[in-house]
Amino acid sequence: MQYEQLKTLETKQARQHIRASEYTGHTAGIAKSNLQGNVVILPLKYAFDFLRYCQRNPQSCPLITVSDTGNPNLSELGVDIDIRTDVPEYCVYKNGHLINTTTDILSLWQTGFVTFVIGCSFSFEQELLNHNIPIRHIENNKVVSMYLTNINTRPSGIFSGSMVVSMRPMKLEHIASACIISAKYSKAHGSPVHIGDPSIIGIRDINQPNWGDKTQFKASEVPVFWACGVTPQNAVKAACPAICITHSPGKMLITDLLA
Amino acid sequence: MQYEQLKTLETKQARQHIRASEYTGHTAGIAKSNLQGNVVILPLKYAFDFLRYCQRNPQSCPLITVSDTGNPNLSELGVDIDIRTDVPEYCVYKNGHLINTTTDILSLWQTGFVTFVIGCSFSFEQELLNHNIPIRHIENNKVVSMYLTNINTRPSGIFSGSMVVSMRPMKLEHIASACIISAKYSKAHGSPVHIGDPSIIGIRDINQPNWGDKTQFKASEVPVFWACGVTPQNAVKAACPAICITHSPGKMLITDLLA
Repeated sequence: MQYEQLKTLETKQARQHIRASEYTGHTAGIAKSNLQGNVVILPLKYAFDFLRYCQRNPQSCPLITVSDTGNPNLSELGVDIDIRTDVPEYCVYKNGHLINTTTDILSLWQTGFVTFVIGCSFSFEQELLNHNIPIRHIENNKVVSMYLTNINTRPSGIFSGSMVVSMRPMKLEHIASACIISAKYSKAHGSPVHIGDPSIIGIRDINQPNWGDKTQFKASEVPVFWACGVTPQNAVKAACPAICITHSPGKMLITDLLA
Repeated sequence: MQYEQLKTLETKQARQHIRASEYTGHTAGIAKSNLQGNVVILPLKYAFDFLRYCQRNPQSCPLITVSDTGNPNLSELGVDIDIRTDVPEYCVYKNGHLINTTTDILSLWQTGFVTFVIGCSFSFEQELLNHNIPIRHIENNKVVSMYLTNINTRPSGIFSGSMVVSMRPMKLEHIASACIISAKYSKAHGSPVHIGDPSIIGIRDINQPNWGDKTQFKASEVPVFWACGVTPQNAVKAACPAICITHSPGKMLITDLLA
């Protein structure tokens, strides 16, 4: 299943192809008007510290839902959703090290697992496109560029670390609208955290993102930075829990909720 | 210290009198423009279930903050705040039974305690008064009437139960404004959950509140109901944790944050 083909499908159909591992790529621009989610799965013993971390850092970690303990279904996001199969690609971390990527986690599931679904900036991108604000990484079929910054998050127990941001190049005349539009999406990171000079937030080289693909700039475009759902992934990685499973950056859970 | 005198004081001064147990009454109308909070203190073992309960029921349980584990200070709400002394009166529950009310919990504090501060409808009352919408229980120096309803909350682990509501009588011409104004206060329960006939939400007798004082109605006034921070207290009581400490209904933590 190719990206261009998946883009034409309804939400439930797109998710079925993902569930069957027929599509394992990024989800930007797929199921356009639906809320997409970052996924973090942790054993119960880490769940309180992590939920408090989300509560303390709502712009990086806007919580959409928290599962019942041990239940792989997320029926409030879509009656058919099974978190063990419905993400295009998963990252499996043990003691803070990425040990595997996989297209399902059926064999890894534990009865004490808790799933956290966190909003994603993809949710407001369609609205930007509707306002004729181009999104480069969608145009070019790339994963959005993501960077580690020097902006501290508020720690909670074992979880702490710097904010990760996603970046979209914008023409000056689009920046105000992009701020106003994204601000309405509080469950999708809200308004930008920084506009312009990347060095101010600790990014040395805009052409070397820490995650995702390099982004092509056009003349007189400015980088605009939004808080990113990889922030909690990064905090989890640093905390070195015995096991943690996340989505692969850019490859999100697609929900039935409207963005 | 009398209520009328406390009403004239600045926030920090009012809190000092509360800290010294010189005032142990209700806090409606005190430190007028500041955010007030419902307080729930639980051992760590119950903290994840309870935090997820708040996340799932944001209108009843709009979280203001969650403390670090074992730390009685809530510096983000006020640098001097010590949750062991700064509430006018506490309720101490053991295994779901109210065993004591007290004006400080210094001798009861445990290293594994976690404090949850939840928004309170008092926060929007000043704004209603600013719009010339009378608040009867403030006029009459009473505790707002609170009722158990038949509206279910979303359960989380051991926590579940019906929504508790607070009620204010309103003239018809004030109801639309009261809805619009309170809707802006999402951290203070937001807009009403019900307007009019109490029996629809399971309240048999408006003159017999489950908590607080009976409210006097004037001619052609309608009862308006808001989700109430006693909801999580009620859920906690039903869950029968070994120990739980809350504020006494109507006697809130006064913070330095603006409402």
